[in-house]
Amino acid sequence: MNIGNKPYRTIWKSSDGWSVTIIDQTKLPHLFETTRLTTVEEAASAIKAMLVRGAPLIGATAAYGMCLAVHENPSDNSIKQAGDLLINTRPTAVNLRWAIEAMKNKLLAISPEAREATAYSYAETLCEEDVEINRSIGENGLKLIQEIATSKDKTVEILTHCNAGWLATVDYGTALAPIYKAHDAGIPVHVWVDETRPRNQGASLTAWELAQHGVPHTVIVDNAGGHLMQMRQVDLCLVGTDRTTSEGDVCNKIGTYLKALAAHDNNIPFYVALPYPTIDWSIRNGITEIPIEVREESEVTHITGCTAEGILQTIRLTPENSPTANYAFDITPARLITGLITERGICPASREGLLKLYPERTSVLTIEAESRPLHDHRNWN
Amino acid sequence: MNIGNKPYRTIWKSSDGWSVTIIDQTKLPHLFETTRLTTVEEAASAIKAMLVRGAPLIGATAAYGMCLAVHENPSDNSIKQAGDLLINTRPTAVNLRWAIEAMKNKLLAISPEAREATAYSYAETLCEEDVEINRSIGENGLKLIQEIATSKDKTVEILTHCNAGWLATVDYGTALAPIYKAHDAGIPVHVWVDETRPRNQGASLTAWELAQHGVPHTVIVDNAGGHLMQMRQVDLCLVGTDRTTSEGDVCNKIGTYLKALAAHDNNIPFYVALPYPTIDWSIRNGITEIPIEVREESEVTHITGCTAEGILQTIRLTPENSPTANYAFDITPARLITGLITERGICPASREGLLKLYPERTSVLTIEAESRPLHDHRNWN
Repeated sequence: MNIGNKPYRTIWKSSDGWSVTIIDQTKLPHLFETTRLTTVEEAASAIKAMLVRGAPLIGATAAYGMCLAVHENPSDNSIKQAGDLLINTRPTAVNLRWAIEAMKNKLLAISPEAREATAYSYAETLCEEDVEINRSIGENGLKLIQEIATSKDKTVEILTHCNAGWLATVDYGTALAPIYKAHDAGIPVHVWVDETRPRNQGASLTAWELAQHGVPHTVIVDNAGGHLMQMRQVDLCLVGTDRTTSEGDVCNKIGTYLKALAAHDNNIPFYVALPYPTIDWSIRNGITEIPIEVREESEVTHITGCTAEGILQTIRLTPENSPTANYAFDITPARLITGLITERGICPASREGLLKLYPERTSVLTIEAESRPLHDHRNWN
Repeated sequence: MNIGNKPYRTIWKSSDGWSVTIIDQTKLPHLFETTRLTTVEEAASAIKAMLVRGAPLIGATAAYGMCLAVHENPSDNSIKQAGDLLINTRPTAVNLRWAIEAMKNKLLAISPEAREATAYSYAETLCEEDVEINRSIGENGLKLIQEIATSKDKTVEILTHCNAGWLATVDYGTALAPIYKAHDAGIPVHVWVDETRPRNQGASLTAWELAQHGVPHTVIVDNAGGHLMQMRQVDLCLVGTDRTTSEGDVCNKIGTYLKALAAHDNNIPFYVALPYPTIDWSIRNGITEIPIEVREESEVTHITGCTAEGILQTIRLTPENSPTANYAFDITPARLITGLITERGICPASREGLLKLYPERTSVLTIEAESRPLHDHRNWN
């Protein structure tokens, strides 16, 4: 997508032909800066410190991290160590594991001499695939927005949480892809952007990228979405996901569950956009099976912004002697989700729905189901 | 309650015998400062700029604002103008209107010469009444916490939103009063404190006053409560209210509705603590009948905190060219509320429940009901 009319992706091979350049997303929206990654350790740090974030972009960065490891040392041991280092940066996102495994399988199968060239070309392939997937998600989600626009004949009001835009992927985004498609097709859309505490990815990244692309939007605090839905000022909720279970439970940025509850309470459609690597076919129940990342207290106690003089400044918000807790994700149960938008189409958030789009998974899931105790989370609480 | 072992209230007549001193709550938790109000205009500004906030404290400040007007000029006109000025500071809180009307009725009925002395003594009476009410709310709510403590035999985990502590009242608080009572009675309690964007009354005020009193607590972002409830880490939600309808709908700080939805979805009791002046007997349906205050965008775009050097600093969070919206309250429908804790006891959030505690209102409500169209918001959505 464009930044000041210049097309960008979020990650690319530098002009030196081996190092990797990323946008440092911790400085947005106040400063636009790129940074060069030269080792797998730097790639791991960039993921951990969230210079890059968003499940698909984490996956792409991990793939390039494997390239950097192989560039330094193409041995089996180097590849395995790089995988271990990268997998431990963020425990929740499934694309991370998926990308690392894909790279490892590819590289360990060939001779060390062939590995560097293959690593870079395969990482590029994974990135291109991400772009294509998001383009398809955009096309599929566009139909939903078109339907609302036709029946409403007014601006389509869409609420989103966190950043599932092009900054969270290699390009286009997941949840924002249909919005960009609709806007570009001339459908009037307006986006309510949850600021998304504690890291404010909505206020910092979603608002910034929508503004760069000229999409009308309004930033709100995370508390406001319920009121807007009560007041019928939202036609559609559209969010991304970091991990989706085989039964359609969605693990996404903390607070997503609350918005899904409000959408359900007000009969507003709640859709989740996702590329297939985000689906974790090995698990069924999001609440009991997905580990929720607990991040540093400083993300809650402190916040960074821009002073009137244009300087980035970090300030403390909480009393010195008050502890804080910082859970990064929550689970939106499938029962609250109207549908999943994938690169293959839209389906109900259920095992049946997902298997209709991914029939090649049927045999795998049947074997797994037989070896596990049955517990249906939809009967919970 | 105590600040550094010294007992304080949130508002008091200064030692000069006529001006009024308040705690400047906009500087908490980083700086503890008091400020003197000498005119009704200063009182109105203090309410509007939220140096004082919280429905009961707004009422008390308005009452003292009427005293300052009468101190300057005890004429009928002065009293009426003061009432008009004060009523327009915050549109949602019903205590404000209630306190102004009570003062006006009292003062306009007596001769101008008698008004100043009566004004101060009546404002003091209203403050004492607030303290007594909150003491009773504390006693009534304590029983709920005791019950949970008995059945659980572990620390009672309570989630609260915004600040309904002693800083929101003259003393004790509403939602926090039962928590202070429980803590003082030796019942182990721990409070999850929602930071409460955009003004962070939870992180700034609730955390600060709980810390001052030694009550164990943890600050969380507003997005986190749903996850904690899913994980069974909350036994009870306890919040305040700015206005409660005669059918038990509750208007409270934006985001309260989202927590009530999560509590309902996870079978966790959700109680609202309120003094009787917060009940607006003239309305029934919170969603259609309560005007929701829209505050300045700057509360969303900017935030104030403390630098490492101990200086209060305001920073921008959002991109320069992204609009924001700032709704201050939302409505929690009665159907999501387990019970209302008042100074007279605990009742269901319904017309029947409230009338059982306030039977003197029965005849008034019957007449009103006959003159209005019937619409039951519980059948909504």
